Amino acid sequence: MKQYKILLIIADGLGDRPVSKLHGLTPLEAANKPNINELLKNSIAGLLDPISPGIVPGSDTSHLSIFGLDPHKYYRGRGVFEALGAGAILNDGDIAFRGNFATVNNDFVVIDRRAGRKLEEGEDLVKELNDKIKEIDNVKVKFYKGTEHRVAVVLSGEGLSDKVSDTDPHYEGIKVLESRPLDSTLESKKTAEVINKLTRKIYEVLNSSEINKRRVEKGEKPANIILLRGASHYVRLPRFKDYTKLKAAAVSATALIKGICKDLGMYVTTPPGATGGIDTDYNSKAREAIKLLKEDYEFVFLHIKATDAASHDGLIEEKIKAIERIDSVIGTIIDDIGRENIVIMFTGDHTTPVELKEHTGDPVPIFLYVPYPIVNDSIKDFNEKEARKGSLRIRGLDVINILLNYSNRAEKYGA
Amino acid sequence: MKQYKILLIIADGLGDRPVSKLHGLTPLEAANKPNINELLKNSIAGLLDPISPGIVPGSDTSHLSIFGLDPHKYYRGRGVFEALGAGAILNDGDIAFRGNFATVNNDFVVIDRRAGRKLEEGEDLVKELNDKIKEIDNVKVKFYKGTEHRVAVVLSGEGLSDKVSDTDPHYEGIKVLESRPLDSTLESKKTAEVINKLTRKIYEVLNSSEINKRRVEKGEKPANIILLRGASHYVRLPRFKDYTKLKAAAVSATALIKGICKDLGMYVTTPPGATGGIDTDYNSKAREAIKLLKEDYEFVFLHIKATDAASHDGLIEEKIKAIERIDSVIGTIIDDIGRENIVIMFTGDHTTPVELKEHTGDPVPIFLYVPYPIVNDSIKDFNEKEARKGSLRIRGLDVINILLNYSNRAEKYGA
Repeated sequence: MKQYKILLIIADGLGDRPVSKLHGLTPLEAANKPNINELLKNSIAGLLDPISPGIVPGSDTSHLSIFGLDPHKYYRGRGVFEALGAGAILNDGDIAFRGNFATVNNDFVVIDRRAGRKLEEGEDLVKELNDKIKEIDNVKVKFYKGTEHRVAVVLSGEGLSDKVSDTDPHYEGIKVLESRPLDSTLESKKTAEVINKLTRKIYEVLNSSEINKRRVEKGEKPANIILLRGASHYVRLPRFKDYTKLKAAAVSATALIKGICKDLGMYVTTPPGATGGIDTDYNSKAREAIKLLKEDYEFVFLHIKATDAASHDGLIEEKIKAIERIDSVIGTIIDDIGRENIVIMFTGDHTTPVELKEHTGDPVPIFLYVPYPIVNDSIKDFNEKEARKGSLRIRGLDVINILLNYSNRAEKYGA
Repeated sequence: MKQYKILLIIADGLGDRPVSKLHGLTPLEAANKPNINELLKNSIAGLLDPISPGIVPGSDTSHLSIFGLDPHKYYRGRGVFEALGAGAILNDGDIAFRGNFATVNNDFVVIDRRAGRKLEEGEDLVKELNDKIKEIDNVKVKFYKGTEHRVAVVLSGEGLSDKVSDTDPHYEGIKVLESRPLDSTLESKKTAEVINKLTRKIYEVLNSSEINKRRVEKGEKPANIILLRGASHYVRLPRFKDYTKLKAAAVSATALIKGICKDLGMYVTTPPGATGGIDTDYNSKAREAIKLLKEDYEFVFLHIKATDAASHDGLIEEKIKAIERIDSVIGTIIDDIGRENIVIMFTGDHTTPVELKEHTGDPVPIFLYVPYPIVNDSIKDFNEKEARKGSLRIRGLDVINILLNYSNRAEKYGA
């Protein structure tokens, strides 16, 4: 049996509900998708519950599940994956947080949760913090720059815990919160103390930083605090290669997704112009996927965030455009690689209805194209309505098994 | 509620993909199935994933699952089921192997992995081995004849392990392998040593056997070694009667399936002329099933291997013929028993596309006929394409529960 290469494309937040401005169509229904609908002629299709029916997935829990790892067992909070995506090298037992550079006044009241959002000096501020804060109470501290105002903070040392509350008040006009232990262990008490000392130290360093003085002079808000949230305890994930036998590469510009893929041991790349937003360079991503498929990667994962970004911002036309550009990406890839050489799955990691601007637990349309005759599902258009007629009604944890089966790479279980 | 008897018919490897020589039809689509399609008029139907979507089942893991036992919990390798099928009586802790009578030269290089395949003297060779080899290092050894060149070997004693490698090199022109422990326990070390001593002793006995001398005189290859594989540790399966309350009988000619059914505590029978191949006597099997249904068995399982045998050999027409004969078997049974008296389920244990000659993880069509009015699935022909329109989209572990429900034998779970 010929073994085929596998391309898995996930459009973040792809699924949707009927949109009133589209006269009840979903963005997938409204979008023009000639390449996808051509592939549907030799595909199985249906609906995917990324975790299980009704569960509202995060992008992290959903991707874990789709990559074959039960999030109920392997998910340990978002901080870890953000830190990995920002380039952190973690060791078992480290505690990682997501953070925002933010602006506080002298009373520690939050004036701007994102310090103006477009923070050009993030790199320099992180450098200054790493130079001036090496440890707190014998706990090592390390800062990693994320996108825009985002930052990851990692604590390393003996006897730490992730059972501590956020310092981020999540609203402006409120004081930075004291972190509290969330259970009665000494580890949690100690970790909360370290975080509170660290927060004050961060303010000292940042508030007196030359960088912030220049920002204030220019009339900008100082980035004089880091608000922490999502404490999570790092335990390395199983290697994707170990449990699938697939040499895998991931194309993504989103720190969280990059973090998961890195931790799974995939080769992770962000091509030039890929932003993780609606302004991403689709062509650059297509070319990168083609390049990887021509190398010795057996599994190429292409992640596109634009659909979710548009959904969260309520941008209906941008979501439709993103879908149409993904259709072009698929066309570019099959024109180059040849549709006879590859198995292609396309789906979303969850539904983000563009009118709700939030994730929901609705199932997501999914299809799998194969390059040989199969009993196909005769679906004419790839959308939430038509997908109901397909034979697939699967969960995230089934995805890898199905890809291995239809790429002729599955090992028989039993005799 | 009237409780109905249950007939479960499994055609091994029934599922298929479009076949080019059949102009894109599957063997099920191409086959003439008047009796099955008549039953479909009062049936529910759909697709079965014998284990879970995409998983490529062996016949053993699949049957366990269909009989209601999760193979991830109960499957312990094939040796045990082969031995049981060959008539072995096993005790908890025994280690069973599948084996081939084979031919080696003086240097232990394998000349023929099957000693010519059609081994008429198998029974006598097994008797001679059982007479001359009773134990090795206080470990009891017992040989059981399988079909053709096949044999099962069972080790009984304290402190044995199934974490040992095969002696079967799986290719000719290579020396018989030394068995090695696959973990660092003393049990595995000891078991590997016993196997290696046993292999040399088997050679001594067989190579000097009068039976082999006569084979050589006739110009045949001596069956002078047994190549071992698939070590598995016996732990008795739960009794089918205990967890289903059904008094069960199985009709099969396949050692592996017979072994599973025996271990579940079913009454197992192979009627005259049933071969486990494409030359099996279908009428004999139909008559045997009718006889059992007329006795006090509440559940009769009829296994037919011919569909899988044809698939593995790439025999398209033979697979179609096998399906048509199964249709006749169903006709014969309902004519005799009466369609008003029985619940009938028909499916496969996995897909074996006749062009691929290997198992795949594609779902298998399934239907359940009941003898009273139900909301039926209005499927006109029983095949992979039509089955997609049905209401069933189930896993192997659901099968027994569905049978109990529609035969009016299920107990309420809860109050």
